[in-house]
Amino acid sequence: MNDRYDIIIIGSGPAGVAAAINAVIRKKKIKLFGSRDLSHKLVKSPRIDNYPGFYGISGNELKDRFIGHLQSMDIEISEEKVDAVYSMGNYFVLAVKEKLYEATAVIVATGVSTGRILPGENEFLGKGVGYCATCDAPLFKNKTVAIVGYEPHGEEDANFMLDVAKEVYYIPMYDEVKKLKSGVKLIKGMPREIIGTDKAEKLVLHNGEVEADGIFLLKDMIMLDQLVPGVEVEGGHFTVNRQMETNIKGLYAAGDCTGKPYQYIKAAGEGQVAALNAVSYIDNIT
Amino acid sequence: MNDRYDIIIIGSGPAGVAAAINAVIRKKKIKLFGSRDLSHKLVKSPRIDNYPGFYGISGNELKDRFIGHLQSMDIEISEEKVDAVYSMGNYFVLAVKEKLYEATAVIVATGVSTGRILPGENEFLGKGVGYCATCDAPLFKNKTVAIVGYEPHGEEDANFMLDVAKEVYYIPMYDEVKKLKSGVKLIKGMPREIIGTDKAEKLVLHNGEVEADGIFLLKDMIMLDQLVPGVEVEGGHFTVNRQMETNIKGLYAAGDCTGKPYQYIKAAGEGQVAALNAVSYIDNIT
Repeated sequence: MNDRYDIIIIGSGPAGVAAAINAVIRKKKIKLFGSRDLSHKLVKSPRIDNYPGFYGISGNELKDRFIGHLQSMDIEISEEKVDAVYSMGNYFVLAVKEKLYEATAVIVATGVSTGRILPGENEFLGKGVGYCATCDAPLFKNKTVAIVGYEPHGEEDANFMLDVAKEVYYIPMYDEVKKLKSGVKLIKGMPREIIGTDKAEKLVLHNGEVEADGIFLLKDMIMLDQLVPGVEVEGGHFTVNRQMETNIKGLYAAGDCTGKPYQYIKAAGEGQVAALNAVSYIDNIT
Repeated sequence: MNDRYDIIIIGSGPAGVAAAINAVIRKKKIKLFGSRDLSHKLVKSPRIDNYPGFYGISGNELKDRFIGHLQSMDIEISEEKVDAVYSMGNYFVLAVKEKLYEATAVIVATGVSTGRILPGENEFLGKGVGYCATCDAPLFKNKTVAIVGYEPHGEEDANFMLDVAKEVYYIPMYDEVKKLKSGVKLIKGMPREIIGTDKAEKLVLHNGEVEADGIFLLKDMIMLDQLVPGVEVEGGHFTVNRQMETNIKGLYAAGDCTGKPYQYIKAAGEGQVAALNAVSYIDNIT
């Protein structure tokens, strides 16, 4: 039996936090996937003046207020990474590494990727370039793989890939590498371009290049329609209505991933609306 | 010359507050109409658990946080009551008692009236029943008028009407009557029904009745399409899209008046979205 929840929330920025709070107040069994730091964007914000009630607060302080709020309500954050969300009709299955979770409703609040797109990235996407190394691992048995990790949990993917691929290169986009197995070849460099002919062949760095059959860019956020197969997206955002419903029954989205303005209070408001509508969706079908 | 603003915001609940904050950050000249207490609904809320960052706060404390936020940004609240908003094509004229204000964009964040509709109220609306005594005063020259005041500023309307009508009855829906002129006849009683044949003739109270040519119900909120002639409403709410645009160019709505859920953080988020879209509307036409 997979673990079953009423609502699974993906993302711990203001939208995910608001969604979790509201769902718990309505007595739903939830799981919140995210980061213990809640949101990189929030934490890095030097000063926020437009979150009503907190004039001049730093992003880090607001993050601490959110964490305090979650703790007061015994809401925990799971740092596992959700690889994919599959609609099964009247429930969802979420693939989280080798585990599966089930939920009646899902709220996606993953933000938007602010990282720039590399030249060649879109061109070779699905032709040697991917965003989820563990998903595609079987395709690279005995082959060479280069993994660009934007966050430390990319190291786990590199370690995992080591069991399958012939050679694994890991290019961290952050300072301190901690858990990388010795078999993985660490490369320091800044990705510039992906080149190839029919398929990706090389990742060009500012100080060299890596030949590889598979090149994985483990960004903070993966493409939305790759996370949720079949979901409608437009211009890199989920298509939602004012109830924060997507085109998939029971799937809601909130926050930056639904479009501009990319703002904290807008995101929090949408998280609340998504949660309350998910609650009434659940109450109506059960 | 009437006073001209970039954005006039009507309503000082969480939606109006968020709209004002965001418009001022974007350097717009604004005017905020509302109450120094911000929102009756907010102030009366004993405990709020779902405004991220403020677990277990009282409505009154949150109101004080909002007021502090507005004061830090030198945003003042005007307590004058806006009687009507008229679109003039590329700007708006707002009627505020005997004054007129102009604005390039308007954000309506007036909340929803929670008072129940009296039997006969809808039937005789415009046929002796109205929501704005000062607007319709000329029609009641030398006639008898009954005014039901849900808030103390209703007394001003009764006093004003005294100059025009033959007889003015005032029925307060609150405890302490303060500024009523001696010519106005004070009646204590709870309205039950409005009766008449072709037009309203009597206001029935639990302890008697008042015969009158005009019966005014000065609710906290007037009907939205009476406030803004020509605006599209549905089920008592403004019809808006995800940009918080109404069907009138330059007119935005936010908060409870756009529909459920009636929640603080949803309202604040919508106020922000309305303000940011109003800002870009203004920047594009000027």
